[in-house]
Amino acid sequence: MILEVVVLDITDGKTNDFEKAFLKAQNIISSANGYVSHELHKCIEKDNRYLLTVKWQSIQDHMEGFRESPQYQEWKALLHHFYSPFPTVEHYKIIQNVPN
Amino acid sequence: MILEVVVLDITDGKTNDFEKAFLKAQNIISSANGYVSHELHKCIEKDNRYLLTVKWQSIQDHMEGFRESPQYQEWKALLHHFYSPFPTVEHYKIIQNVPN
Repeated sequence: MILEVVVLDITDGKTNDFEKAFLKAQNIISSANGYVSHELHKCIEKDNRYLLTVKWQSIQDHMEGFRESPQYQEWKALLHHFYSPFPTVEHYKIIQNVPN
Repeated sequence: MILEVVVLDITDGKTNDFEKAFLKAQNIISSANGYVSHELHKCIEKDNRYLLTVKWQSIQDHMEGFRESPQYQEWKALLHHFYSPFPTVEHYKIIQNVPN
């Protein structure tokens, strides 16, 4: 299992529209092969900043399965125009945790 | 509930020492008032990069309760010398998620 992590900075005045669009978009990502779970977080210190984390079974499920699917084009159309600047995606392995 | 998020870049050659120190340090944080859970993740794309996420009952539990406690001095002594550059902490509210 891996964690996709993306910090999203949204164009001024567009955060409500982004949140509405994300409600639709999450149905796309949560239907993808290898998807496990996701969380969208809103930053307390910086207006316009969000953090998206997505757990995937493997990095290939994200970078090949999802990114090369027709559904990714819908995801892009819904969300990418809100981002300024365009974000950098990173992937992480969970190495230590204490269960909730 | 809020999520503390910190990207940690570790001095070259010190990642194993950092991971060992973190095993001790996690006992400190997980005993703090208002602590809910944490995860330490290792970046796949960038050597030396980690992501620490900690769920707290409130931002005050982190910034006042933990940061102003004697236990925070132990946490600092165990971990802060590994960081280069020194990290920026952000806090987020979970606004949308699909349960795991």
